Amino acid sequence: MGATKNRAQVGVLGASGYTGAELVRLLSRHPEVELRLLTAERHAGEPLDRVFPHLGGLGLPNLVAMSEVAWADQSLDVVFCALPHGTTQEVVASILDAGANGSLKVIDLSADFRLEDPAVYETWYGKAHAATALQAEAVYGLSELDRERIRVARLIACPGCYPTTTILPLAPLLEAGLIEAEGIIIDAKSGVSGAGRALKEPNLFSEVAEGVNAYGIAAHRHVPEIEQQLGKAQGAPVRVSFTPHLVPMNRGLLATIYVRVAAGVSADDLRGALEARYAGEPFVGVLPEGAAPATRHVRGSNHCLISIFADRIEGRAIIVAALDNLVKGGAGQAVQDMNLVCGYRETTGLEQAPLFP
Amino acid sequence: MGATKNRAQVGVLGASGYTGAELVRLLSRHPEVELRLLTAERHAGEPLDRVFPHLGGLGLPNLVAMSEVAWADQSLDVVFCALPHGTTQEVVASILDAGANGSLKVIDLSADFRLEDPAVYETWYGKAHAATALQAEAVYGLSELDRERIRVARLIACPGCYPTTTILPLAPLLEAGLIEAEGIIIDAKSGVSGAGRALKEPNLFSEVAEGVNAYGIAAHRHVPEIEQQLGKAQGAPVRVSFTPHLVPMNRGLLATIYVRVAAGVSADDLRGALEARYAGEPFVGVLPEGAAPATRHVRGSNHCLISIFADRIEGRAIIVAALDNLVKGGAGQAVQDMNLVCGYRETTGLEQAPLFP
Amino acid sequence: MGATKNRAQVGVLGASGYTGAELVRLLSRHPEVELRLLTAERHAGEPLDRVFPHLGGLGLPNLVAMSEVAWADQSLDVVFCALPHGTTQEVVASILDAGANGSLKVIDLSADFRLEDPAVYETWYGKAHAATALQAEAVYGLSELDRERIRVARLIACPGCYPTTTILPLAPLLEAGLIEAEGIIIDAKSGVSGAGRALKEPNLFSEVAEGVNAYGIAAHRHVPEIEQQLGKAQGAPVRVSFTPHLVPMNRGLLATIYVRVAAGVSADDLRGALEARYAGEPFVGVLPEGAAPATRHVRGSNHCLISIFADRIEGRAIIVAALDNLVKGGAGQAVQDMNLVCGYRETTGLEQAPLFP
Amino acid sequence: MGATKNRAQVGVLGASGYTGAELVRLLSRHPEVELRLLTAERHAGEPLDRVFPHLGGLGLPNLVAMSEVAWADQSLDVVFCALPHGTTQEVVASILDAGANGSLKVIDLSADFRLEDPAVYETWYGKAHAATALQAEAVYGLSELDRERIRVARLIACPGCYPTTTILPLAPLLEAGLIEAEGIIIDAKSGVSGAGRALKEPNLFSEVAEGVNAYGIAAHRHVPEIEQQLGKAQGAPVRVSFTPHLVPMNRGLLATIYVRVAAGVSADDLRGALEARYAGEPFVGVLPEGAAPATRHVRGSNHCLISIFADRIEGRAIIVAALDNLVKGGAGQAVQDMNLVCGYRETTGLEQAPLFP
Repeated sequence: MGATKNRAQVGVLGASGYTGAELVRLLSRHPEVELRLLTAERHAGEPLDRVFPHLGGLGLPNLVAMSEVAWADQSLDVVFCALPHGTTQEVVASILDAGANGSLKVIDLSADFRLEDPAVYETWYGKAHAATALQAEAVYGLSELDRERIRVARLIACPGCYPTTTILPLAPLLEAGLIEAEGIIIDAKSGVSGAGRALKEPNLFSEVAEGVNAYGIAAHRHVPEIEQQLGKAQGAPVRVSFTPHLVPMNRGLLATIYVRVAAGVSADDLRGALEARYAGEPFVGVLPEGAAPATRHVRGSNHCLISIFADRIEGRAIIVAALDNLVKGGAGQAVQDMNLVCGYRETTGLEQAPLFP
Repeated sequence: MGATKNRAQVGVLGASGYTGAELVRLLSRHPEVELRLLTAERHAGEPLDRVFPHLGGLGLPNLVAMSEVAWADQSLDVVFCALPHGTTQEVVASILDAGANGSLKVIDLSADFRLEDPAVYETWYGKAHAATALQAEAVYGLSELDRERIRVARLIACPGCYPTTTILPLAPLLEAGLIEAEGIIIDAKSGVSGAGRALKEPNLFSEVAEGVNAYGIAAHRHVPEIEQQLGKAQGAPVRVSFTPHLVPMNRGLLATIYVRVAAGVSADDLRGALEARYAGEPFVGVLPEGAAPATRHVRGSNHCLISIFADRIEGRAIIVAALDNLVKGGAGQAVQDMNLVCGYRETTGLEQAPLFP
Repeated sequence: MGATKNRAQVGVLGASGYTGAELVRLLSRHPEVELRLLTAERHAGEPLDRVFPHLGGLGLPNLVAMSEVAWADQSLDVVFCALPHGTTQEVVASILDAGANGSLKVIDLSADFRLEDPAVYETWYGKAHAATALQAEAVYGLSELDRERIRVARLIACPGCYPTTTILPLAPLLEAGLIEAEGIIIDAKSGVSGAGRALKEPNLFSEVAEGVNAYGIAAHRHVPEIEQQLGKAQGAPVRVSFTPHLVPMNRGLLATIYVRVAAGVSADDLRGALEARYAGEPFVGVLPEGAAPATRHVRGSNHCLISIFADRIEGRAIIVAALDNLVKGGAGQAVQDMNLVCGYRETTGLEQAPLFP
Repeated sequence: MGATKNRAQVGVLGASGYTGAELVRLLSRHPEVELRLLTAERHAGEPLDRVFPHLGGLGLPNLVAMSEVAWADQSLDVVFCALPHGTTQEVVASILDAGANGSLKVIDLSADFRLEDPAVYETWYGKAHAATALQAEAVYGLSELDRERIRVARLIACPGCYPTTTILPLAPLLEAGLIEAEGIIIDAKSGVSGAGRALKEPNLFSEVAEGVNAYGIAAHRHVPEIEQQLGKAQGAPVRVSFTPHLVPMNRGLLATIYVRVAAGVSADDLRGALEARYAGEPFVGVLPEGAAPATRHVRGSNHCLISIFADRIEGRAIIVAALDNLVKGGAGQAVQDMNLVCGYRETTGLEQAPLFP
């Protein structure tokens, strides 16, 4: 960034959704960032705090429509895409084409560039991918697991909240051969903000409050992403059972994962391996024996907490992981990736302690 | 009950807890019941609506202390015990001894008489059982599975909310040999009322709201009760993995159960078997393919809803069951047993539709 | 109803909204009612439990579109309208016209027939009323305050939830000259179901949970209805200050009302007057000194609880009233009116105790 | 702080309550603060994250009991007291006596030093004040209204959450003679964390969730504090009506305030006066006409948002104010005072944007 330290010029596409708002919350207080561009189609022309009153007084630019952005004239360093799945691939392609700034980096929070195999994409999304070259170029942005490739990537596919919670504990254990790849069962519980701000009946207060339910059983779109990343850790295809549940809370993601351990391996061994793997990681904590994480303990922070328990059934272990779906499971992970890309200290702008109660 | 239709004379011990209150809610509107005795130690002498303002205007007797009850003078037909675990066994023994009415029936909602093997009780509760003869006599009160023995029982041990949700779907499938007894994984999600009205920090609003967490991992006291009943269905010991979670809602229990199916058996086969088993049962519903139950859909009612899904992993299925922990998982089940014991229509007093939203 | 006891043949228009569902919940268990007709436009042809899974197993007719109903062929005794404001007036006019059954009664839960003065209607709803003759005929259906006129009405305009909570305590006090008509301040707190099941951003879980806010300040459409009814009690126009708030709960309405007492009148006098006025009323309770109502204590029931406190400011009193907006503030009140109209005992089908917790 | 920039050495007494935890959350990330002492009686000897798991990884000292603190050896600059009401006065007296550091400052978050008149204290707390000299010395710590006295104070009495929400809008309007001092009605809605972490039945999840109620009607201990500060603004005694309500949310305080305006004064005049009064204030925002604040928009931040509406009743206005009871209504206000006392920029450590959803 040269002798005179200049702040990164940053844009957020899709600033009127919850993920976009969370990006703005974090980036507006990031000491190395200047927020220059915020897009939102329906609210173009409005100040952001008319859409999100909690984001007032931050001196932000008004929202603009994508079509009004003259990409060639922008001198942005980093663009975050928080657009709906399926619409992002064309947008990213056009940005990277048109960007006057040859060094533009794109950090995408949609699912569009997460699946490496175009055939898998087509199976789960029902149409061919529109930017397969970029898909091949994109780096999966789970900072702790692929730091070096992220640093030099031009296009980063930020992981989904369910995959992050699952891959962080499982990938190192599979890699080390400490757990079996077969029969992994993931029972996940999510807060409602994970469904976004879209007007859908299941997201109404009265449909969610005072109850819990499973959804997308055996058919959730995050499954192939989890299997892809676990397969890489295993070095062979992995097939998991994944059942998400909707919990009446705004934020939070808890995954309870049931695994078979390798012969002769104990829960303590698993814990020890994860402690070693994540020693020194500021955002991943492995809890001591007996302690269980709660989503309350990570709310608003970029932390992921993991704990390991021996199961009552011989040869099995239970792994519980918790994070905030909008932070480590979304905007916070994206900012962490930006810090890597821009050469900042990885924790910059992400040091807030969790908010409890 | 003779030519002159007399209403059953009923007592509730422990009326100042949530389970006691729910018993009163149901019994006060039961057309065949007269509530004659309500006990509560700390609140003895007070009207119940000072403790539970929602139970006003029902013409109920004041609360009394257990020590003030002259059991020999009472002419009660049925006594419900909603006392804490561990204190119930002596109380029940003394009531059955002292009761002037030789035909007194006791329906116990604590865990004290649920475990048939005194050694198992001692292992999990850390002390010898104080009424082993009664323990041997007690009938496990899951109406749909043991109706005939319940009808003639003197002492009924009402099942816990977690076991009910689990046993209703699993017992018939094990009995029929449709699922494997090994490797059953139960991931359960409970509302907060399941923890009772006791003053414990984890039950404070700010400790529960806006979050989710697992607790009692691999060590919850409901495990031996589940294993005992499943073992009977299987005809051999069964060992399950059971992980309860606390969800920010007042009522509701959802169990997501991961099983291996027997060779050649499909999810449709499981669904068909449960449909057949529970055909005609007014309180157990098996949902059509693709539908998933939510605790909201049973709130306040005595219903249990069950659904079956094929898992993505070959040879596995996912069973989801939902009920209201205070009704079918507690007071409602107890009233259903009373209806059996007293020869009333089994649905009497339990016909309210669920309350949603 | 003649020697052969026939059940009332009943229809519910708009059964896919929360008010419609609540009507079905109550009516499906009403011993004198047979539910014959359920309409819903978007879901026509479906069974109701596909829209509201909690209403399964009740043996109800499928949903139909309004346009498919051959009114001349229907032999309904009572029709409940739970349609959106503004669309109801034409519908009711056509039903009453076309109904083969000359004795058809309509109980309307919309705001369309609540305002007696067409000019006031036009002011607040921005268009002329389309059925002014019916508007003049309609009887305001607050059972406790106008029982005799309701009994013989053909068209009943059921009160809104805010007005019911406000009018029940205030009307008798104004009538008796115990409080001043000037300067009445109503601060009301409502659960989210009051806003219906419509897809609006402010009703999303994440927009409501974990917070509280005022809305429609000094401009809410329930104001003229409150002022109309209080004006009648006072015998002169009354102008109130009314501020509704949205609280993160499904059900419940609490009104905290600040009034000036007449010279020489105490809070005890107010309480005494309300106790006298509502003595013997099964659904209205006046609490003893010092007790304050909570919406939890009336959840799911047709109760309204009222308490009175002396204010710290000389000459002022504070009135707090609570009810369930979907029951006494909606469907329960409507059923109570039906009981009056049909000559049933007024509490029939409304005797459920509140659901707590 | 001299040529060598040293960080302030800070202690928190009562770190195991919610207010204590919130102080730690803010202070642990304050760039000018070193947290040196944390006390908690029941948990003495434990690390803070055993009590509050969300506060792990911050490198904090273990909890100690008050009796173990050698005050003469401590070289603390600032001590925050988050101890229960009534116990603080002796503690503060002994600290200020014993402190080796003559320049020690105490910022007290209890009610013990807020009331200037010992007779008023005795009336509301039922016993004589034990440190009346200190009570006379203490400065009421509402930063925006008494900045200069706070800068030089040795003992600061941080305002309660209800008073802050009320005084910020009302004091300037009374001072300017724009509203009447008579007949001010304050209807306040609070989140549950305001009641602390104490084990009391009304704070249990199932007692709070899914409902709303008023409490402490006409008798809440925050009333004299409000009246004292408004009386100073008015220059004459003020008597208010104040009714707090409990809302099922963790954080947040909303006050809806009903006032009579002075002759010839409009709601716009009130808004203009507050805009002028708080122009340049980083933490107090006056909303434009028509916008209403929600507690969600300030969650986790030190912001207070205020809006003004003309009432429907001639000559009256409605003021709505929102803040986070644990931040601007507690720990954040205390840190803001510390910044004043220590000569730091007033916003240091308090710049986090609100957390929504």
